[in-house]
Amino acid sequence: MARPKPLSGFPEFLPAGRFVENRVLDIVRSTFELHGFAPIETRAVEPLDQLARKGEIDKEIYVVRRLHAQEGEADELGLHFDLTVPFARYVLENSGHLQFPFRRYQVQKVWRGERPQEGRYREFTQADIDIVGQGALAAHHDVEIPLVAIDVFERLHRELGVPPVTIHVNNRKLSEGFYRGLGIEDPAQVLQRVDKYDKIGPAAVTELLTGELGLTAAQAEACVALAGISATDESFVDAVRALGVTGDLLDEGLAELAALIRVARASAPGRVVVDLKIARGLDYYTGTVYETLLEGSERLGSVASGGRYDSLASDGKTTFPGVGYSFGITRILAPLIGKGQLTASRSVPSAVLVAVDAEETREASIAVAAQLRSRGIPVEVAPKPDKFGKQIRYAERRGIPFVWFGAGHDDSVKDIRSGEQSAASPDAWTPPEADLRPGIIAG
Amino acid sequence: MARPKPLSGFPEFLPAGRFVENRVLDIVRSTFELHGFAPIETRAVEPLDQLARKGEIDKEIYVVRRLHAQEGEADELGLHFDLTVPFARYVLENSGHLQFPFRRYQVQKVWRGERPQEGRYREFTQADIDIVGQGALAAHHDVEIPLVAIDVFERLHRELGVPPVTIHVNNRKLSEGFYRGLGIEDPAQVLQRVDKYDKIGPAAVTELLTGELGLTAAQAEACVALAGISATDESFVDAVRALGVTGDLLDEGLAELAALIRVARASAPGRVVVDLKIARGLDYYTGTVYETLLEGSERLGSVASGGRYDSLASDGKTTFPGVGYSFGITRILAPLIGKGQLTASRSVPSAVLVAVDAEETREASIAVAAQLRSRGIPVEVAPKPDKFGKQIRYAERRGIPFVWFGAGHDDSVKDIRSGEQSAASPDAWTPPEADLRPGIIAG
Repeated sequence: MARPKPLSGFPEFLPAGRFVENRVLDIVRSTFELHGFAPIETRAVEPLDQLARKGEIDKEIYVVRRLHAQEGEADELGLHFDLTVPFARYVLENSGHLQFPFRRYQVQKVWRGERPQEGRYREFTQADIDIVGQGALAAHHDVEIPLVAIDVFERLHRELGVPPVTIHVNNRKLSEGFYRGLGIEDPAQVLQRVDKYDKIGPAAVTELLTGELGLTAAQAEACVALAGISATDESFVDAVRALGVTGDLLDEGLAELAALIRVARASAPGRVVVDLKIARGLDYYTGTVYETLLEGSERLGSVASGGRYDSLASDGKTTFPGVGYSFGITRILAPLIGKGQLTASRSVPSAVLVAVDAEETREASIAVAAQLRSRGIPVEVAPKPDKFGKQIRYAERRGIPFVWFGAGHDDSVKDIRSGEQSAASPDAWTPPEADLRPGIIAG
Repeated sequence: MARPKPLSGFPEFLPAGRFVENRVLDIVRSTFELHGFAPIETRAVEPLDQLARKGEIDKEIYVVRRLHAQEGEADELGLHFDLTVPFARYVLENSGHLQFPFRRYQVQKVWRGERPQEGRYREFTQADIDIVGQGALAAHHDVEIPLVAIDVFERLHRELGVPPVTIHVNNRKLSEGFYRGLGIEDPAQVLQRVDKYDKIGPAAVTELLTGELGLTAAQAEACVALAGISATDESFVDAVRALGVTGDLLDEGLAELAALIRVARASAPGRVVVDLKIARGLDYYTGTVYETLLEGSERLGSVASGGRYDSLASDGKTTFPGVGYSFGITRILAPLIGKGQLTASRSVPSAVLVAVDAEETREASIAVAAQLRSRGIPVEVAPKPDKFGKQIRYAERRGIPFVWFGAGHDDSVKDIRSGEQSAASPDAWTPPEADLRPGIIAG
């Protein structure tokens, strides 16, 4: 077999990159759990008819079939392309065993048969949180989502140096109520045009609204004025009111968004921004919507998004409304790891290499390694009884900070960075806390 | 959408089951790291021609293709059915960036289009460790594998009550050398029959060897006598010698296996058993082989197995020999979780429910929750400002041990198991360590 080439769109990391990813996933999962989200995992495949229901995306589905499927055997399964469709199915399938509101998180790979390009992958990891009610779900749950997101991103920033984010929020009720208050009958069409605001600018959006949708200049200008409003506090309410539009749905949206920004601002001033041009174009959201921009990588687009939906699933009798948010783990990490901006201090977990004096005394080194491991210290034993210098170079190449010499007869440990060496007992010696695990460093 | 039915062969767990699985995976991964194995993950798909090379298994492959693939577009990808084929490809692809011997672990789902039955799944999680050399890999690495396995299974037993295991080891050089010493020319044929020893018994194996392979009665009896040898120490060497067969390959196998059992016995007496009937039938192993039996579930067969192979991969110039071992995580866990033998003390991560007095004061509860979380305590805020009794029942149904009342004005916390309630400060109060995370309990 000649050296194989990477498959485009299927990113893989060397061990140092995987250490970074694992640290990120530990932070993500433990933060989700601090907020009371329970872990689940669903199978990789769903019935094809369920996956294909989501219109727009069906061309990107990977179909799965047995290599030796019978002639005429129908394609029945596909790889999930997000974690929402499987979660909806899981909720219906298990609703009798779940307590509602049900708060779950799910960190898994998803697959899309897209043409690979920067920031787009065919296999990537998503980390989703959702809160789902049975029949109803109170509006205040929408406020919880940005609190979790802020906690995750602040830890990623503080502990790993991932750039900080701003979370942009809007509310579909607000936009739709406003458009209806202007006498517009198809708000979805307006939302789709407003969604291009960042790309094409306000003047071009105005043109689309008048040209394509036939809005009056006054209507179009009001829509674009609304889209231009942003604030990090409740002042956006006055700005919207100043446009002179009224209506119950608008009021409801304003109240929900005001409650959200009030709590978010108290928790992390400036990190959450009311941004009334956020539309999340074609998605099925019905209230709050979230997008997240990574500072310095705004051109990647939103790296984490979500919103409120009236119905995640329904079994005919009961509807399950929810609010959710999805972190694009690969989208955030693959560029940082790929360009070496985040890496690990070593390529192995081992904090210590136990040297071997001679092949006949390997068992003494194995015994020292076992003693160190029993106290939680990651260790490997040298593969060869080389000269001391060679054993040190073996450690150096992997970034292992300590080498243990004289196992079982004249035990000592050397910090190969400082060169300092001192007598040590395998029952008592412990490396500094910071050396116990590979550190994550800016490359 | 009517309530969907589970897909046979694709096990999924409720959150309590997933807590169990996550604890097991934490133990597995952290033990691998204590032994110096570095984490990697590979994509779910491999080129179909690479997957199909392993003859016997090709009927079980799931092919993956885009739903809207062009007419005539060849099937090129399949889901991996183990973690060895992808790892071999990864080593070749990245050999220039890896340090050898390369010790890696990999915990991922694999897929096989098998007919589902007890202990067989179409999607399941494997946890693999391998040590791979470039050109050569010293025999002493074979001893490391059972040490890791013992550490994993002892922790699973001690911390979670998973039944203990015995690891059965043999060495192909020993068997093959012995057969050749008897004048047998096709040792692989003999191995395949000996592999049935446990199922059909020694007499039936003798018959197969004489009837199907045409061995003499003396040859067949010697082969069966060899298969009957087992020991937890080096005494097996004398038992083999007593059969009167000699040869260099036999000596090499005896020496390797003796070294392995000597070290394993010193580390965990009785847990590793030399068992000369272990053959691992059709696999490509060339030296040491491992099988693992779960006490009380022996009929499940081996839940973790592996061995030494002369060539994991080769790029024409360089060969990569290795030794590896694969834990069948789903095979071990799905029955224990499914039958309720292992479950979690609660269905949510939350240790505390912060009650809400009235919807207007929710923000005070959110603030208390944030303070508790900042000190690592998993918390959720009550979804409704219910009467105290209802809030306690909300916690009870989920197994949350503590309810926080009077957020921000008259803070107190109640242990709903004992009924004990006392004043508490969100800046200082901490639950007992054992209540911080869901416990894993025998159901």
